[in-house]
Amino acid sequence: MLYKKRLMTPGPTEVPPTVLAEAAKPVIHHRTPQFRKVLTEVIAGLKRIFKTEQDLLVFPAAGTGGMESAIVNLCSAGDKILVASCGNFGNRWSTIAKAYGVETDHYEVEWGMSVSPAEIEKRLQADAGIKAVYITLSETSTGAESDVKAIGQIVAKTPAVLVVDAISGLGAIPMETDAWQADVVVAGAQKGFMIPPGLAMVSISKKAWTLAKESKLPKFYFSWEKAQKSMIAEALANTPYTPSVSLIMQMAESLRLIEQEGLDVVWARHAKMAAAAREAMQALGLKLFCTGQPSNVVTSVRVPEGVDGGILFKVIRDTYGITLAGGQGKLKGKIFRIGHLGYADDWDVIAAVAAIERALGEQGFKFQLGVGVSAAQKVFFS
Amino acid sequence: MLYKKRLMTPGPTEVPPTVLAEAAKPVIHHRTPQFRKVLTEVIAGLKRIFKTEQDLLVFPAAGTGGMESAIVNLCSAGDKILVASCGNFGNRWSTIAKAYGVETDHYEVEWGMSVSPAEIEKRLQADAGIKAVYITLSETSTGAESDVKAIGQIVAKTPAVLVVDAISGLGAIPMETDAWQADVVVAGAQKGFMIPPGLAMVSISKKAWTLAKESKLPKFYFSWEKAQKSMIAEALANTPYTPSVSLIMQMAESLRLIEQEGLDVVWARHAKMAAAAREAMQALGLKLFCTGQPSNVVTSVRVPEGVDGGILFKVIRDTYGITLAGGQGKLKGKIFRIGHLGYADDWDVIAAVAAIERALGEQGFKFQLGVGVSAAQKVFFS
Repeated sequence: MLYKKRLMTPGPTEVPPTVLAEAAKPVIHHRTPQFRKVLTEVIAGLKRIFKTEQDLLVFPAAGTGGMESAIVNLCSAGDKILVASCGNFGNRWSTIAKAYGVETDHYEVEWGMSVSPAEIEKRLQADAGIKAVYITLSETSTGAESDVKAIGQIVAKTPAVLVVDAISGLGAIPMETDAWQADVVVAGAQKGFMIPPGLAMVSISKKAWTLAKESKLPKFYFSWEKAQKSMIAEALANTPYTPSVSLIMQMAESLRLIEQEGLDVVWARHAKMAAAAREAMQALGLKLFCTGQPSNVVTSVRVPEGVDGGILFKVIRDTYGITLAGGQGKLKGKIFRIGHLGYADDWDVIAAVAAIERALGEQGFKFQLGVGVSAAQKVFFS
Repeated sequence: MLYKKRLMTPGPTEVPPTVLAEAAKPVIHHRTPQFRKVLTEVIAGLKRIFKTEQDLLVFPAAGTGGMESAIVNLCSAGDKILVASCGNFGNRWSTIAKAYGVETDHYEVEWGMSVSPAEIEKRLQADAGIKAVYITLSETSTGAESDVKAIGQIVAKTPAVLVVDAISGLGAIPMETDAWQADVVVAGAQKGFMIPPGLAMVSISKKAWTLAKESKLPKFYFSWEKAQKSMIAEALANTPYTPSVSLIMQMAESLRLIEQEGLDVVWARHAKMAAAAREAMQALGLKLFCTGQPSNVVTSVRVPEGVDGGILFKVIRDTYGITLAGGQGKLKGKIFRIGHLGYADDWDVIAAVAAIERALGEQGFKFQLGVGVSAAQKVFFS
C-alpha cells in the first residue's frame, strides 16, 4: 500500500518543490554577472536571517567545514578554548580543536541537559587565557538548546570570542547574531534553510576578525581572509574557487520562501510543531529525553521498556514511509528523534505521531489509540 | 531574438537533462540503506572511470578541497615537494603548499607549454628529499596537457608519490590511474562528470597511504583516514559528516550515462571536438595559445590584433548565448577559451565556431565567412 515518503529528521530536511525545481535548471557559470547578482542577493538575504550586519561568507562544504573554519581561522596551535558541549555535535568542536593542536577546556553536561551559562562564566573567570568559547545552538543529537543570549552577555564582557554552531536551528528558531553578541555563527544548508546539503555559512564579527588576524593555524580552502577578499572586499560577489552554483540558486529561492512567510512566523511555526510533538509523546506515556531547554527543531524521546527501538524506527520508515532519526553513539536504540524542521507543517507532525502510535501498538505497547494525535491537535488548535 | 544558452567553458559544464532531473527529486537521508547503496555504486563507478582499484574517497567540496586534501594528508610542515606547473591551476598546488608551510621546488614553464618529464626527472635526481610531485593533467587556464604516463614512469622509480590534479579532464580524456602509476588523483564534479560543482573525488594508492601515515599536518574535514574509515574500512558507505546527497544521486545518473556511451567513445568524442576546434580557429587565421600538448577539453586561442577580447567574449555570451571562457590572471583579454567538455557534441562546437565567426566579423576582423565552420566539419566528417 502507498505511503508517501516523509523526511522528518533534524537534517537533511525536505526541500520545497520550487527549491527542488531550481536544481533542475541548467547550470550557469560562476564568473558571470548573472551568478554574481544571485550570490550578492543570497549573502544579503542570509544576513537578514542571521540578523547580522557583519561579514557573512559561504563555503561549498558540509556544516562541519564551517565549524572547522571557526577553529582554523581563530586559533593557533597551543591556544586554549572553552567548549561547552551537551552532545555529539558539541563534542565535535573539541575533536576538531584537538586535530589542530588547540587546547580545550572541555565542559560537557549530561546528554539531554543544556549547558549552564553560569558554569561558562566561572570557567572564563578561572582562566583569562581562553581565546574563544564554542557552543551549540540546538544540539541535534539530544534535542537540547543552549541559551545563546545569556552566554553572549557573559562572553562579551571578556576578551574571548563566542562561536555558535547554529547549523541545526538557524532559520527555524530564534538566533539573533548581533543582538546576542555571537561573534561567529556557523549555519548549514540542509536544516532550516531547506536546501540539499553542501553549503556552510559563517558570520564573523569585528571582534572575531581581530582574533583571526592573530591566528597562525594553516588554512587555504577554509580561509576567511581569502573568501572575504573575493566575496566582499572586492565587492565582486566572487569566490576564491568554484562555488556550488546550483545550491546557491536553490538558496535564493529558499530565502524567498522564508521571507515570504516571515521569519517570525517561521519561528512560531517551529515552536508550535515542537510543543505539539512534546505534548503528543507525553500523552502516550513516553518520556522526553531532553531535560534541559528543549529545542524547537527536534524532539528526542526515550524508547519505552518492552519496545525495540531499532524495529520501531525501521517500521516507521520502511512500512509507513516516515523517516525519523534514531539515537547517535551511546544513545543508539535508546531514543528516537522527531525532526520538525524546515519545510514541515502541523499536519506532518500529526502524521508522524499517528505513525508512531501505530508502530508502538504493533509492538504491544499499551496506550489509548489517538491520545497522542489529539494532544498534538490541541496544541495546534489553541 | 532567441539564442539558447550554451555553456562552453572548461567547467562548470552543461548538465544532461536526466542528471538535472535527479536534483529535482526529494532529498533522502544519508544514514539510510537507500543512500548507502547509491554511494557504494557511485564509488565503484568512479573507480572504473579513474581506472583504479585503489581506495577512492568523495568529499563535499570544490575540486580545490580535493587538492588541499592531497597536501594536508601527504605532507608535514618543512617537507619538500616538487610542483610542475604550466598555469594558474598548477600554481595553486604551490599556493596551498605554502599556506601549510610545505617547501616547494616550483618548476613552472611558460604558459601555453607543457611541463617536461625530463626536467621533473632531473629535479628528482638532484634532490632525494622530495616527498611528492604535484602535476596537472589538463591545465584549464592555458589548454595544455601534461604527459602523466611519462611522468608516472619517472616518479615510480623514486620514493616520491605522484599527485595529479585531474579535475579538468578526468572522465573526458585518457587518464589511467593505476596503469600510469598515479598515486593520488583528484577530480571534480563539474567537468567531465557533468554534474553541478560541489564534489571532490580522490584516489589513493598504497604508496600514497604509506606517505600519508607519516603526515603531521593538522586535518579534520579533509582527513583521508577518517573518510576511508567511514566509507570503506567499515564497509558501510558511510560518511564522517553529512555528504552532498543530491550531488551523489546526480553522479549516479551521470556515471550511468558515461558508461552507456562507453568511456573509450567519450574520449574519442572529446578528441574529435578538440581537433575540430583547433582546425577551425587556425582556418580563421587565429593562433592557438597552447604550444605544448593541447588538451582535448579546452582550446585556448589568442585574441587577434585589432579585436577587443573583452567585447568579443561578451558579445558571444550576451548576444549569441554561448558562454566561452576568457583568459585568467595575466591572460585576461589576451585569449579566449572554448570548452568542449562533458555534455557537449559536434554540433555544439560547430555552433561555437559560427558564433565566434560572427562576433569576429562584427569587429571588422577579416576572414572568409564559413571557413572556420567548414574546417570543423571536415574533422567531424572524416
